[in-house]
Amino acid sequence: MFPIEDLQEKITHSISQLRVYDEPAGLYEPISYTLGLGGKRLRPLLALISTQMFGGDPDKALPAAIAIEIFHNFTLLHDDIIDQAPIRRGRETVYKKWNINTAILSGDTMFAIAYGELAKSDPDKLSALMKVFTKTAIEVCEGQQYDIDFEESDDVDINGYINMIRLKTAVLLAASLKIGAIIAGVPDEDAEKIYNFGENLGIAFQLQDDLLDAFGNEALFGKKTGGDIVSNKKTFLYLKALECADKDDAEKLKSLYSNKSQDEDQKIKEVLDIFRRTGIEDYTGKAILEYYNKSMGFLRQLKLDENALAPLLKLSNGMLNRNY
Amino acid sequence: MFPIEDLQEKITHSISQLRVYDEPAGLYEPISYTLGLGGKRLRPLLALISTQMFGGDPDKALPAAIAIEIFHNFTLLHDDIIDQAPIRRGRETVYKKWNINTAILSGDTMFAIAYGELAKSDPDKLSALMKVFTKTAIEVCEGQQYDIDFEESDDVDINGYINMIRLKTAVLLAASLKIGAIIAGVPDEDAEKIYNFGENLGIAFQLQDDLLDAFGNEALFGKKTGGDIVSNKKTFLYLKALECADKDDAEKLKSLYSNKSQDEDQKIKEVLDIFRRTGIEDYTGKAILEYYNKSMGFLRQLKLDENALAPLLKLSNGMLNRNY
Repeated sequence: MFPIEDLQEKITHSISQLRVYDEPAGLYEPISYTLGLGGKRLRPLLALISTQMFGGDPDKALPAAIAIEIFHNFTLLHDDIIDQAPIRRGRETVYKKWNINTAILSGDTMFAIAYGELAKSDPDKLSALMKVFTKTAIEVCEGQQYDIDFEESDDVDINGYINMIRLKTAVLLAASLKIGAIIAGVPDEDAEKIYNFGENLGIAFQLQDDLLDAFGNEALFGKKTGGDIVSNKKTFLYLKALECADKDDAEKLKSLYSNKSQDEDQKIKEVLDIFRRTGIEDYTGKAILEYYNKSMGFLRQLKLDENALAPLLKLSNGMLNRNY
Repeated sequence: MFPIEDLQEKITHSISQLRVYDEPAGLYEPISYTLGLGGKRLRPLLALISTQMFGGDPDKALPAAIAIEIFHNFTLLHDDIIDQAPIRRGRETVYKKWNINTAILSGDTMFAIAYGELAKSDPDKLSALMKVFTKTAIEVCEGQQYDIDFEESDDVDINGYINMIRLKTAVLLAASLKIGAIIAGVPDEDAEKIYNFGENLGIAFQLQDDLLDAFGNEALFGKKTGGDIVSNKKTFLYLKALECADKDDAEKLKSLYSNKSQDEDQKIKEVLDIFRRTGIEDYTGKAILEYYNKSMGFLRQLKLDENALAPLLKLSNGMLNRNY
């Protein structure tokens, strides 16, 4: 069994070996810039951990793991255009540093490179891997579209929001685990269970992220909190507050989220006051725990021994028990 | 042997059966709009013709053929953003009808759907198909990047231009034929020959397109000629004219291509006069013939009988002998 650090090292090494320093430079420089920004490399790590947990050789999962990481970075490149995000991982986003056209085309190339890496997997498994990978890629696009739609809509409910974060975030974490399982050669029903584990863990992870965006420790979180509030994002916190607040607070919250010309810090303070009065931290904490427990239920059904499970449990606990 | 019309019918039917009328509508409506715009469906037709020519069952090539057509349409969606093209096939482009973000995200989804269709091919062939398809997808992006680079550059030569159109246009035609050949189960060297045929035919096809853009019959061409001239596109015609024109005409041509505030019709007329004086129609015609002959050389090496070759010859002659 490789410890997590060794698996991380394999991923870092593989990414550094990618041939993305080619001509035309206008296409490939933004790609090596993006892949060089680092990040937690959570998704490829989940794939390698999963393969190893099911008794497979993590080296055989490396191409697919790298494919997932490149795909994830490609989605960020295009999302940053759509969300007009100037900064990613402390550096300028590609569309800001270069321009929109570059971010589109370099992103497209990364998507193709991702499939190219996936295709280096065992040919016997390729058909199954392609199915999960492609279904997931389409779902991630659907999630991003729902996210865009929700910005304009007054008709978002909590179920719709959960489905959006499931598609936008959770399914790729789930697919990473399932891809690792397929490469280890597990039966379909076990691959489905580890997928379900990842899907629920992913929803818990995103809810935690929403919670930290409102209530996180700014120093540890590494960015200013209240970003979702400033951009009127209809997160679980906001939707739950609308549902549970008294009439006055609900009206005030709606008005705070529709008024565009207001002092940002004052707005954050007022929204957080409503969230606090309505007990939103607790509600969200309970929802996180619920999805976490659901994920663990799927994991237990696999009846793996504690040793095999250790790296995955360590990583998933790290994903949730953070205040940053 | 199916005649071309029957193969076209198979393609039209398969595209109409695609599940692209799904939720969220904001993502899928632009996709069905794009696929509904029609077009010549040249690339999937080349794939089916190739499979049949090599003795394979064209129905087995349908998923890959559809994958190629969806991929091609995806590149048009993103290219239209990059080129700020308002009209495609007589209708508004997606980024004009909706917006840039929609065109980005619906395009990304189409790229994933393309791979999803490809993955429906025979699992034994999938690994080989993925390699050609992905290599080609990356090359098409490289071609588009060179096209963008050339707009800004004063240092484009004819070899660079031919390489750009090879990547942007020819390799996908070549890959369509090679994919058809792989599905028919031909030896690698034959798949390579049909690829080389397609690559050279594709360059001839694009040069013909450049020629028609300058000298085509507007009524038959279906669009205003002189578009490349107005947008200062450094095509084969322009580069050859710079090479062959006398000093005065070369200077004048350069100045016409750098001056932005001028009457369009007057500019087209003056450039065409220089092209005519320099014999550019002839030079281009010769270059087209040269690439055509080269392509036929590769085709002859396959030693297929005339009956088997007939549909491909009919289609490729149709691609070149057009004045529209």
